[in-house]
Amino acid sequence: MIKARGYATRHSFSRLKLFEFEREEAGTYDVEIKVLFCGVCHSDIHQAKNEWSNTVYPCMPGHEVVGTVTKVGPGVTRHAVGDMVGVGCMIDSCRECAPCKAGDQNYCESNNSWLATYNGPMVPAKKAPDGNNIYGRDNTLGGYSDVLVVNEDFVLKIPAGLAPEVAAPILCAGVTTYSPMKHWKVKDGDKVGIVGFGGLGHLGAKIAKAMGAEVTVFTTTKEKLDEAKRLGVAGVLEKDKEALKALKSSFDFILSTIPEKHDINPFVALLKRDCTLAVVGALEPLAPVNNQEVAFHRKSVAGSLIGNLADTQEILDFCAQHGIGPDIQLIPIQDINDAYDKVEAGDVRFRYVIDMASLATEAA
Amino acid sequence: MIKARGYATRHSFSRLKLFEFEREEAGTYDVEIKVLFCGVCHSDIHQAKNEWSNTVYPCMPGHEVVGTVTKVGPGVTRHAVGDMVGVGCMIDSCRECAPCKAGDQNYCESNNSWLATYNGPMVPAKKAPDGNNIYGRDNTLGGYSDVLVVNEDFVLKIPAGLAPEVAAPILCAGVTTYSPMKHWKVKDGDKVGIVGFGGLGHLGAKIAKAMGAEVTVFTTTKEKLDEAKRLGVAGVLEKDKEALKALKSSFDFILSTIPEKHDINPFVALLKRDCTLAVVGALEPLAPVNNQEVAFHRKSVAGSLIGNLADTQEILDFCAQHGIGPDIQLIPIQDINDAYDKVEAGDVRFRYVIDMASLATEAA
Repeated sequence: MIKARGYATRHSFSRLKLFEFEREEAGTYDVEIKVLFCGVCHSDIHQAKNEWSNTVYPCMPGHEVVGTVTKVGPGVTRHAVGDMVGVGCMIDSCRECAPCKAGDQNYCESNNSWLATYNGPMVPAKKAPDGNNIYGRDNTLGGYSDVLVVNEDFVLKIPAGLAPEVAAPILCAGVTTYSPMKHWKVKDGDKVGIVGFGGLGHLGAKIAKAMGAEVTVFTTTKEKLDEAKRLGVAGVLEKDKEALKALKSSFDFILSTIPEKHDINPFVALLKRDCTLAVVGALEPLAPVNNQEVAFHRKSVAGSLIGNLADTQEILDFCAQHGIGPDIQLIPIQDINDAYDKVEAGDVRFRYVIDMASLATEAA
Repeated sequence: MIKARGYATRHSFSRLKLFEFEREEAGTYDVEIKVLFCGVCHSDIHQAKNEWSNTVYPCMPGHEVVGTVTKVGPGVTRHAVGDMVGVGCMIDSCRECAPCKAGDQNYCESNNSWLATYNGPMVPAKKAPDGNNIYGRDNTLGGYSDVLVVNEDFVLKIPAGLAPEVAAPILCAGVTTYSPMKHWKVKDGDKVGIVGFGGLGHLGAKIAKAMGAEVTVFTTTKEKLDEAKRLGVAGVLEKDKEALKALKSSFDFILSTIPEKHDINPFVALLKRDCTLAVVGALEPLAPVNNQEVAFHRKSVAGSLIGNLADTQEILDFCAQHGIGPDIQLIPIQDINDAYDKVEAGDVRFRYVIDMASLATEAA
């Protein structure tokens, strides 16, 4: 076993603090990673606080992980000691269902769905139809730690052109916004709307722009209009009804990144005929959608969940090629609880990334 | 002017009764039609009672109209006196917008959208951005009448193999269910679900089956399970949770035909990954959709509105070729108010069609 340290919480009402534990040694096909950086995703907060009612404690979040390979199992061929690598939301999937065979591990339809980097299988054994756990792990502990051991197939390569701390949020926020834009065929010259201008939204806007789209971001925060200008995209206040009216029926694709229940009707109205609004931020019931607007122009409201491994590698490489990446604020792990408060308040520009070197300085 | 008679209501709270009025003579490109049969659509009731808050009175419903051509304007080339023809939900559109040019008149994006067979432009002048009315008609009076005058382009041909009274509901209920199945590419061997087993649902089920799909209808009415069996399709009670559970993630396409606000979440769960549920029955806010189920399998919830002229002709011909059509109950127009009560109670098997000969027997 490997001695490991990280930050975890034992209860929904507790704050994260130092947690010492052991990880399994790297098996035949596993890679041991010294974690250098880990992004802070809004999902981390939802999970730490059990807001999706599925948290297994202790909960150690972190699924935007970048580090260096320190050891590889004897069967590993894809990675070598010293490589800069990344781990996103998944560390395994069943590999046998139709989506897995099609390369869409993020839609794994096994009884337990995929194995999340933290919080165990997406469908826990007690909710699985047969009550089994194909991964043998009820819980997993994520990237808010000094070391991670992951099957090589679920380890991504960080391209040389990308700073490791900047690469981290691409592993979740990047692919979560890129995958639906790819799936719904966003192309050069398309008009793309991004609803919510936070961690996901700002990165989605940069990616859409690099894909050649004309991008408009919708935000509730007036101060963020300047940020939009700085990014070279249009910014509109969600409450600006006149501005929304002028944009009616003009978008080819809209991505909603708001991480909680919200009303998408004002944005559905902005879609062109036959176009799609995809919700990636909120995993819960949305406010009622008026089918009159949807049916009158044969629109669609869809959902999308992160992205598969190939898309994750693709967007990492794409960001390196285009010289784009998230705007990050590095923090020591000791500031994580304060960072959570700020993320919830929308007070971050735009993604916190934990500098894991801070962990080593803390006494047990 | 042509002297005309029909059934109309002057107020949302009134019942329909005999109404005498005048129609414009057929212009250069118009066809005058002696109405033989008119289907009774749930929309007729919504409109007569102003349930969509857009009714112009007097309201004379009827958009499933079949009759014989009695006169043609000098420029008419598509139809001749004596032809058996049909008129559906539309009698004109702008013909200039992108959807119209693409042949999708039902998604006309002019300021007034398309001109409905009854109740005037879909977007009335007072709601149009420029306050104009490109059709010059604030109201239109529909097929619950003895005569109709319609531009030839919006007049469909009733194929010889189809009884005129059976053809009538295909003009709305038929194309409303066929168009989305065509658009979302329902194909031989697909598993198709039809939610709601009324006028639209039963016809959609027959069409889907004729398209080669394996069809399951979902109904709240136990007695209708026998009707499903008679049609050769599977029937499931909506409240049968065990049956729904067994069907999870198994449908390629689901069509919801329920004509009022309803909860589609139980049916979204039945879709396969990457598949679509289209709502055609309800033109209002639906119950909140849980984005967790949608996102976890990249599903879509869409809407669709009737169908274009080409699809309408196509489904008329398809029904004639396959020897299918709606199950109808012929009624005299004098029974229309009673029929409305029964439609609202779900007590019709499956579509009322007015035999317009009954109108001639009524004294003024």
